[in-house]
Amino acid sequence: MSVTPEQIRATADSYIAALTAGDLEGVMSLYADNATVEDPVGGGTIHEGAAAIREFYSTVVAMKIDGEVLDARVCGNDLLFNFEITTHFDAENSATINVWDLMTHNDEGKVTSMRAYWTPENMS
Amino acid sequence: MSVTPEQIRATADSYIAALTAGDLEGVMSLYADNATVEDPVGGGTIHEGAAAIREFYSTVVAMKIDGEVLDARVCGNDLLFNFEITTHFDAENSATINVWDLMTHNDEGKVTSMRAYWTPENMS
Repeated sequence: MSVTPEQIRATADSYIAALTAGDLEGVMSLYADNATVEDPVGGGTIHEGAAAIREFYSTVVAMKIDGEVLDARVCGNDLLFNFEITTHFDAENSATINVWDLMTHNDEGKVTSMRAYWTPENMS
Repeated sequence: MSVTPEQIRATADSYIAALTAGDLEGVMSLYADNATVEDPVGGGTIHEGAAAIREFYSTVVAMKIDGEVLDARVCGNDLLFNFEITTHFDAENSATINVWDLMTHNDEGKVTSMRAYWTPENMS
């Protein structure tokens, strides 16, 4: 089985749709069982395997999030895409972050590696 | 020895400056001896080691190139940056390409891995 560029590109929209819907299963369905997630890159923590990835995202999807995909390019099995999400901590407090994510896919179209590039400079 | 975010960020400007100056030694000075270069990612060729990397860039710097860095972010030892270069093949023909490069640095500040993300859609 081989994955197409269109399928890889679709991960970007599916990912942001799942995050903004608070859909943990939707997020998890994008990942291979043995995937790794580093968010942010250089942050010192790499979430490895489905259980660790689920734990990471469970705190993310618990918050109200708006977001949209701004740019994406597919090269080989890699998807490099830019998105902006706004997290609403409560009625008055929110934070917007601009992220470039690099997601490497396997031949079944599942993400085996996610690396998120953002710094405090990309927050507003 | 440890490399600083500022030193990693400087690679972006040094790289484009060397490319536009046709300075092959300047490009090579950014790379570790055992580095790999994949440009574009998924293109099927990974240039491995200084000799292969030198051969790849020798054809690039032989052309007249304009370019500028458009964006950059440093996360850990990774530099993710966006640039646009215009290659002038002759007096009448040129091509502009918008690239996102991911360059991983070692603790000496040398690039150990370069991966260039661009597709035909990013050419004009």
